[in-house]
Amino acid sequence: MLPVDPVLRHLEQDFDNSVERYLALLRIPSISTDPAYRAETRRAGQSLTDELATLGFEASLRDTPGHPVVVAHHPGPGGQVPHLLYYGHYDVQPPEPLELWDSPPFEPAIVEGPHGRRVVARGAVDDKGQVRTFIEAFRGWHKVHGTLPVRITVMLEGEEETGSPSLPPFLDRNRDELAADIAIVTDTNSWDIDTPAVTYMLRGLLYVEVTLHGPSRDLHSGLYGGAVVNPINALTRVLGQLHDQHGRVQIPGFYDDVEATRAAESEAWRKLQFNEKKFLGEIGLHTSVGEAGRTLLERIWARPTCDLNGIWGGYEGAGAKTVIAAHASAKLSCRLVPAQDPERILEGLKNFLDARTPPDCRWEVQSFGGAPGVRIDTANPFMQAACAGLEATYRRKPVLAGCGGSIPVVGWMKHYLGLDSILVGFGLDDDCIHSPNEKFELKCLRNGILSHTAILAQIARLGR
Amino acid sequence: MLPVDPVLRHLEQDFDNSVERYLALLRIPSISTDPAYRAETRRAGQSLTDELATLGFEASLRDTPGHPVVVAHHPGPGGQVPHLLYYGHYDVQPPEPLELWDSPPFEPAIVEGPHGRRVVARGAVDDKGQVRTFIEAFRGWHKVHGTLPVRITVMLEGEEETGSPSLPPFLDRNRDELAADIAIVTDTNSWDIDTPAVTYMLRGLLYVEVTLHGPSRDLHSGLYGGAVVNPINALTRVLGQLHDQHGRVQIPGFYDDVEATRAAESEAWRKLQFNEKKFLGEIGLHTSVGEAGRTLLERIWARPTCDLNGIWGGYEGAGAKTVIAAHASAKLSCRLVPAQDPERILEGLKNFLDARTPPDCRWEVQSFGGAPGVRIDTANPFMQAACAGLEATYRRKPVLAGCGGSIPVVGWMKHYLGLDSILVGFGLDDDCIHSPNEKFELKCLRNGILSHTAILAQIARLGR
Repeated sequence: MLPVDPVLRHLEQDFDNSVERYLALLRIPSISTDPAYRAETRRAGQSLTDELATLGFEASLRDTPGHPVVVAHHPGPGGQVPHLLYYGHYDVQPPEPLELWDSPPFEPAIVEGPHGRRVVARGAVDDKGQVRTFIEAFRGWHKVHGTLPVRITVMLEGEEETGSPSLPPFLDRNRDELAADIAIVTDTNSWDIDTPAVTYMLRGLLYVEVTLHGPSRDLHSGLYGGAVVNPINALTRVLGQLHDQHGRVQIPGFYDDVEATRAAESEAWRKLQFNEKKFLGEIGLHTSVGEAGRTLLERIWARPTCDLNGIWGGYEGAGAKTVIAAHASAKLSCRLVPAQDPERILEGLKNFLDARTPPDCRWEVQSFGGAPGVRIDTANPFMQAACAGLEATYRRKPVLAGCGGSIPVVGWMKHYLGLDSILVGFGLDDDCIHSPNEKFELKCLRNGILSHTAILAQIARLGR
Repeated sequence: MLPVDPVLRHLEQDFDNSVERYLALLRIPSISTDPAYRAETRRAGQSLTDELATLGFEASLRDTPGHPVVVAHHPGPGGQVPHLLYYGHYDVQPPEPLELWDSPPFEPAIVEGPHGRRVVARGAVDDKGQVRTFIEAFRGWHKVHGTLPVRITVMLEGEEETGSPSLPPFLDRNRDELAADIAIVTDTNSWDIDTPAVTYMLRGLLYVEVTLHGPSRDLHSGLYGGAVVNPINALTRVLGQLHDQHGRVQIPGFYDDVEATRAAESEAWRKLQFNEKKFLGEIGLHTSVGEAGRTLLERIWARPTCDLNGIWGGYEGAGAKTVIAAHASAKLSCRLVPAQDPERILEGLKNFLDARTPPDCRWEVQSFGGAPGVRIDTANPFMQAACAGLEATYRRKPVLAGCGGSIPVVGWMKHYLGLDSILVGFGLDDDCIHSPNEKFELKCLRNGILSHTAILAQIARLGR
């Protein structure tokens, strides 16, 4: 068994270099949703491929119909050792609205905050900062022992922020090569800056774009207004009915497969004494709204949603334009809990819209993909090992948490590779992911690196 | 009395030159709402000023805080003659969406249509084509008789498409200089290509932009969704309540001052045998929707409306972005009928919104101005003269029509100058004003020129 302490000491001493490598990756604008950034997105994948090759991995960048996938294999120390599949993504969300950033999103700024230094940049935490935590852990083991303590495969995709269209077929085609004992996914949060967390429940996602088409062209609102359908009025009327007055989603069949929250979980979540006031205060709010009769944590971890993520139609420029638009559109997503089937929810949504189609209008519905929610068995020995590694680093037991976000790859790795996932991540609630001024605390980066190092030691002990 | 027949003959012969002058004006992108086109907008006003100066007018371009106003005076033949104030506007709507134009909006294209040649360009009819009709009539009188048959003041503004913010104070400051017996406004439609119309009822307008502010920043829809207010969801819920199931606007007090349609008018409108199927078919529709129990003409001419003219919020780009936007906005306008007070309707709208404010949210409401509806006495001798001039040109009696559009200047000229307006225009329903591929039939341009020529002769007969 390779000793972990010298690895931890080395990583502590080398932390400034870890930060430099981290900043270099943040400077690449790998915005996967925007075709204009296709080459930059590939460049981010290539740089990680090259880096893994220097750490003893056999690494390659694999083309897909979309953005490429980094795949890298390390044989470990030899003998019967566990085999882990690390997953992360090197693409980022678009940075808009640009005017709300305090510094350019792809010129990472190191800023002093209440927890010491932090890095402000698009992708600072999601997911480039998180990916950096395990790559630096690998680097530490490689540097000190010349090898890693277990067998490792790394898979980093470039399409997570666009719904990963190429990943399911990629997993399907490469089942043998990607075989492992368990997956490690680093794209979630700590409980707070001093308390680690392992996430065992994730919501799924269904994301669609809907357009309501009405008149064959834009119309003058004086010459036609009051006598013909106005697609923006009609769209707001229909989408305004997505929830009832109790915050319940009105899509037919939406709650059919939703499990009631288990009593033991409700009890455990109550004991967490989640600070609602702080959670809401950080985003300028005082009141949790949503499904009536649920706690805030339950609303986010265990209940499904329907949120409009964008809406547009007609004139958005300066001043007044007296137009009735020919069509109006919205982007809409449902967060799903385990057992809800995205396909069935999509059908329900289409039925909801069809039942409310105004005369002479038609709907155009485009799905950007879906994934079911996930629940991992907390008794899994790999999860126990991860908890032990986190406790060794933080000197606190990790919280077993839910997460309202969606990590579709967890479902796909189960489906195509038969793998459960251990979700260990180091973000904080106030990291502003997907928002202007996304940041990552350097303390979180450091604890993430040390935690992954310790988790590898714990997992090596499991043997096969 | 100067004879009209030689003027009409000259204008018939000179029509190709009239068209060339018309096309030159269309080439100037005088988009008043967009600050980027400020200089071009002024250039359009300057070109008309210069042109009027060549026709015996004392013409000048007057600065305002916004776009300038063309003012030009012609003394007429001397003696006791009527004094007319011609109003038009030289600014145009933005051309967006550009991809729906068959030819560039500011490169006028002459295209063959079912009524002969037509011109496709932004402003083809609204209002550059209409303005061209009376300027060419002036040119004809000037060319043949060396003077005009009556005294004329011309006022052409450059802010009509942005709600004319500078015009009311301009009228107020120049009451004496703009004094006349009656105003002639050319910004309305014929009944059909072979039947002229005089418009005696116009709807007014209230135009506002509303923004609903929620969280202090954009949020990740997974990490917050279901537990916090989503401004786009909330905006659609509120705006979706603007009408009840009978199409009645739900703004408090909205119908308090609306007059019931008069029986004689209902009867006259029924006799027009308005072709609803054709009107709707031209815009790809089959069904008139709106206030229940009203005819289509009544809905457009005599009933108030509330239309959303634009809506935006969150992510509008390609693909998926799982965001909850910090705010969402809409542009909204009410067409008003005579006796409805725009200020009171604005207050009602604010009350409507306030009563529906979600927790932790606030509304921002910006008004782009309002104007009441207008009704002109059909027994007015100038209106009778206008009808006679139209009948002489078309060999048909003009229809006395309502118009669903708003021409706020008509109300302001009454208020500041004490002037009634005669609304004579030559557009057609299918001219696509405010839309891509706006056009004007050359037949309408020609009949407009000849009609204004004949109307001037009829008005000259009235004496003082």
